Amino acid sequence: MATTFDDRLAKLRKSFTGMGVNVSEQIYQSTKSYIDHDVDLAEKVCAHDLEVNENETHMEKHAMNLIALQQPVATDFRIIISYLKAGTDMERIGDAAVGIAKETALAKGNPRMEDVEDVIAKMTKHIRKMLEQILEAYTTFDAKVAPEIVQEDHKIDKYYESTRIAITKGILINPETAVAASSYLMVIRYLERIGDHIVNLSEYLIYSDTGKIVELGEEDYREI
Amino acid sequence: MATTFDDRLAKLRKSFTGMGVNVSEQIYQSTKSYIDHDVDLAEKVCAHDLEVNENETHMEKHAMNLIALQQPVATDFRIIISYLKAGTDMERIGDAAVGIAKETALAKGNPRMEDVEDVIAKMTKHIRKMLEQILEAYTTFDAKVAPEIVQEDHKIDKYYESTRIAITKGILINPETAVAASSYLMVIRYLERIGDHIVNLSEYLIYSDTGKIVELGEEDYREI
Repeated sequence: MATTFDDRLAKLRKSFTGMGVNVSEQIYQSTKSYIDHDVDLAEKVCAHDLEVNENETHMEKHAMNLIALQQPVATDFRIIISYLKAGTDMERIGDAAVGIAKETALAKGNPRMEDVEDVIAKMTKHIRKMLEQILEAYTTFDAKVAPEIVQEDHKIDKYYESTRIAITKGILINPETAVAASSYLMVIRYLERIGDHIVNLSEYLIYSDTGKIVELGEEDYREI
Repeated sequence: MATTFDDRLAKLRKSFTGMGVNVSEQIYQSTKSYIDHDVDLAEKVCAHDLEVNENETHMEKHAMNLIALQQPVATDFRIIISYLKAGTDMERIGDAAVGIAKETALAKGNPRMEDVEDVIAKMTKHIRKMLEQILEAYTTFDAKVAPEIVQEDHKIDKYYESTRIAITKGILINPETAVAASSYLMVIRYLERIGDHIVNLSEYLIYSDTGKIVELGEEDYREI
């Protein structure tokens, strides 16, 4: 029995969801390793990134073969282009998780700021919820989630801004925290970037739905 | 006279090169505004980002129409996919330039570290050279520049690592620099990210040339 276009598309959707679940778990494990000062767990996150990269390469090949061999049009074409672009953002989210995991070894053993670590845990929870929402939306290519994602990302930006100020003040109070503080700044930056990638994912949903290429949350971005 | 596929492809190449020149100028102006504490120039960089985003949207539409309407195959198909992906990375490089420009207002008026600002100027020069090389390679889709780009990015990573340590030490010597230091960390991070995007651009050259999807400099990345 020949494999139909719809079968292939369903396979692509499944690959993307699998990759998303993988990446969400990486975010969870990376901030856990960071907050628990667990270098072994951090190393596992780094090792597991190979699988995320393979996920993306596999998805890309699949998507490009679908375009080249089946020459889809209209919505089908746009959905595949969206998967192609979404795979790249998802892979970069995975890279950010690795970046956070690598901070574990850099920060370990230095005087820390517990309140900042609490915020990092909160930001992570928030981001994983956003990722869950977007993965759900990708199963039906329903773009109506986009405004909510932009709002949620706005909250992540606010966390980032206020925590950055708190970290800088923390250094002034206790300069011994400088090493951990440098690391916190990088970690909150990674989390803020993940939020932006999730916004990108929602932009591709709008493109697949309407054919319009949009830049969501650009004004929010400018406000930072 | 009907526009041929080659004419359209030439137009796409021209758009990409134009965008690249625009983005390179943005990087130059943004670090200049940062180092000169020139808030007016920083604002110009932020305003000019609209044009970079429009460049990308225009390129994307153009590339997607070319695929959808002309259904190119083999190398032609891969070249267009490469432009599509390259446009996204170029736009993100533009975002990083805006990020640096925005740091100008945040750092201005605070005790600074001159040696770190010298390194930022050096990193910027280095990155603009890499960008020039990659733009040149995109005019002929010649992938042989890729190993050199990875080597150059490795140097950027080394700058990033050593400067991060210098910044942290600087805080311990003079905690009054904490605000500027937070900002320096972000700026060197933006520059390091720009290096990664340029590596991505070289990966797409390899894809268009060979059809292979590669992850260059992944080991270097892991070493950070």
